[in-house]
Amino acid sequence: MTHDPVDPVLLDRLADVAVRVGLNLQPGQDLVLTAPTAALPLVRRVAAAAYRAGAGVVTPILSDPEVTLARFEHADDASFDQAAGWLYDGMAQAYAANAARMAIVGDDPMLLAEQDADRAARANRANSAAYRPALEKIANFDINWTIASYPSVDWARRVFPDLPDEDAQARLAEAIFAASRVDTADPIAAWEAHNAALRSRTEWLNAQAFAALHFTGPGTDLTVGLADGHEWHGGASQAQNGVVCNPNLPTEEVFTTPHAARVEGHARATKPLSHQGTLIEDISVRFEKGRIVEATASRGESVLRKLLETDEGAARLGEVALVPHSSPISQSGVLFYNTLYDENAACHIALGQCYSKCFRNGADLTPEQVAEQGGNSSMIHVDWMIGGAETDIDGITENGDRVPVFRQGEWAQ
Amino acid sequence: MTHDPVDPVLLDRLADVAVRVGLNLQPGQDLVLTAPTAALPLVRRVAAAAYRAGAGVVTPILSDPEVTLARFEHADDASFDQAAGWLYDGMAQAYAANAARMAIVGDDPMLLAEQDADRAARANRANSAAYRPALEKIANFDINWTIASYPSVDWARRVFPDLPDEDAQARLAEAIFAASRVDTADPIAAWEAHNAALRSRTEWLNAQAFAALHFTGPGTDLTVGLADGHEWHGGASQAQNGVVCNPNLPTEEVFTTPHAARVEGHARATKPLSHQGTLIEDISVRFEKGRIVEATASRGESVLRKLLETDEGAARLGEVALVPHSSPISQSGVLFYNTLYDENAACHIALGQCYSKCFRNGADLTPEQVAEQGGNSSMIHVDWMIGGAETDIDGITENGDRVPVFRQGEWAQ
Ligand SMILES: [Zn+2]
Ligand SMILES: [Zn+2]
Ligand SMILES: [Zn+2]
Ligand SMILES: [Zn+2]
Repeated sequence: MTHDPVDPVLLDRLADVAVRVGLNLQPGQDLVLTAPTAALPLVRRVAAAAYRAGAGVVTPILSDPEVTLARFEHADDASFDQAAGWLYDGMAQAYAANAARMAIVGDDPMLLAEQDADRAARANRANSAAYRPALEKIANFDINWTIASYPSVDWARRVFPDLPDEDAQARLAEAIFAASRVDTADPIAAWEAHNAALRSRTEWLNAQAFAALHFTGPGTDLTVGLADGHEWHGGASQAQNGVVCNPNLPTEEVFTTPHAARVEGHARATKPLSHQGTLIEDISVRFEKGRIVEATASRGESVLRKLLETDEGAARLGEVALVPHSSPISQSGVLFYNTLYDENAACHIALGQCYSKCFRNGADLTPEQVAEQGGNSSMIHVDWMIGGAETDIDGITENGDRVPVFRQGEWAQ
Repeated sequence: MTHDPVDPVLLDRLADVAVRVGLNLQPGQDLVLTAPTAALPLVRRVAAAAYRAGAGVVTPILSDPEVTLARFEHADDASFDQAAGWLYDGMAQAYAANAARMAIVGDDPMLLAEQDADRAARANRANSAAYRPALEKIANFDINWTIASYPSVDWARRVFPDLPDEDAQARLAEAIFAASRVDTADPIAAWEAHNAALRSRTEWLNAQAFAALHFTGPGTDLTVGLADGHEWHGGASQAQNGVVCNPNLPTEEVFTTPHAARVEGHARATKPLSHQGTLIEDISVRFEKGRIVEATASRGESVLRKLLETDEGAARLGEVALVPHSSPISQSGVLFYNTLYDENAACHIALGQCYSKCFRNGADLTPEQVAEQGGNSSMIHVDWMIGGAETDIDGITENGDRVPVFRQGEWAQ
């Protein structure tokens, strides 16, 4: 007897949740669906769910890790400065015509770990430049979009290196199904309740309008000033085309924009950071006037330094996010090597670019106005976990009063 | 012990032949590679071969039969008039920037046989309209392109319905490898020799400049007038970007443009015609002044009639092609249900659109000039086998002399 390590019934539900909750796909809307070839079982179910929801045309664009590796193995050096701009331009055209967009992640997070780092960086840069016209429409939230994930064997092996393939995949599948709330009787209702809970958190935080948050915990004593006119977001959110969607499946965080010049103190990472195939462990940093002025790590310190030197904004914060220690992803105890999951396991800060939507009337602000209010800008956005079971957070009001926000890793209110 | 039904060494060679002979991919050229998901083993090898040949970026665009069927099963009726124009526009942009193009075929040829015929036709029409900007660049031969094939299980089942899956796939793989000349010691040299042989045939036919061909065989007595200024083509051919490529792998035919108004007599098909999931058997037709005026079939006659009624040019000829009975595909005795193979197994004629390149200075002719010289035009182009072991063909010169071209299915010269 063989047993499918990925429960097909729960996979069907995940597809349904991704289409109905993640995208909230509208009748007649086209769907651009990117995924690795390993995710084909989910791609097929998403296509069916999308057509059931009234999709116009569903177009899967599948990437393949072996094709990617073939390039690193065989291509001329000049190849690594090129990208398939024609495909991204086509996607931008699709989004301009109101197509929805779903990305399914599921590749080996360390796929390029053994490849030439310089070539990988160049390919990344060429790709980012070519992707910009399409990415801007996503970043501006022009259309409803979402990211979901498929528990591929290649990914599962990295997460559970000591288990046989089948068991590793089954464990990763369970973790993904739990985090995506499809292991409950009525996943749609569970998501409605979850979105309502996140909304009540953001409403409370927005009403407080804190000037700063003060984090304390083992190795951490950090005051994060918040941007002027910052706004908290989390859970479901309305795209410019009027569709309310959940851009990340799963999502546990509420998040806003820190002030790029008002972060003081020191912080120690509570989880390793997986960055472009390298694991950076035991990060410890000190901030002065918003900028990281000291940084150490027990492993991958040179990668961390290179990251902080990317550009002027790379050593400043672009996001602060609150996630209780009791969040299902945190409780699973699993390090996914995937930001979509790992950032939803703990309170975190992000180096680099801020989200303009995390300002009041953010859609109307110019980049100059965002910067004036304290929003950071950078080519990078790297989330990095600083929360845990012992994390306390105080909100500091304009006049210096302290309001308990987190106590021992959980919401205080 | 398990045995891969598709020999990986020969598959590597097929990828190499497709890139080097089919495309003749140039250093720095990007490659747009379309294929069904089942063809992934060949896609990966083609990517490697392309990068070894100096490709810029190889972009696979994979289609999936289950996603296609999900649409027919679940989509709203309105979906069937829509298409992913954004993707085709992107491809057109890629070809305009000199990307090469490879199509790998390998889907079940009867994939849509049980789906609603009207919806299939509508989806086809919407797709063709959206694809036009990209297709024009292929049809105009702006860039080097080729079609190759992968022996998928789904296809193999149709070809060898009585065999177990593994055996069917192994048999189809052998047939494809043999027809693609990769089962020889030096496939590249074999293709050079084959292209030279086809070239000497076209040179001889072009020197003869026949006014007509007279086909005789069981049930066939057909005089096919050739277009004024027609030119024979076959094998390798130069694209407008200067690259000499082999647009079809395999290819056994030499072909030219008949005169749309000068076909007289009757013809009987020597093989069934597989058209959009229907098998049309024992076709028999009679021509008057270039037009089919009588058509019968023992099976699928209504589909045949509908095909002939598509438009004014659908009942006239757009191609006549010569293939000796000793061609390897013919000798295999296999009906592939795939034009790429079946049209290379026997002399054939095609209903519908002609190739403007099959005229002297064809690239410079306007559509009006092509029509004036006898070139047919239509939305369809459907090849249909009339040759066999007993086929005789005479060339008829301007002044009525007869020159033997085929005797008993083989070249007479
Ligand atoms: Zn975050
Ligand atoms: Zn973030
Ligand atoms: Zn032909
Ligand atoms: Zn043809």
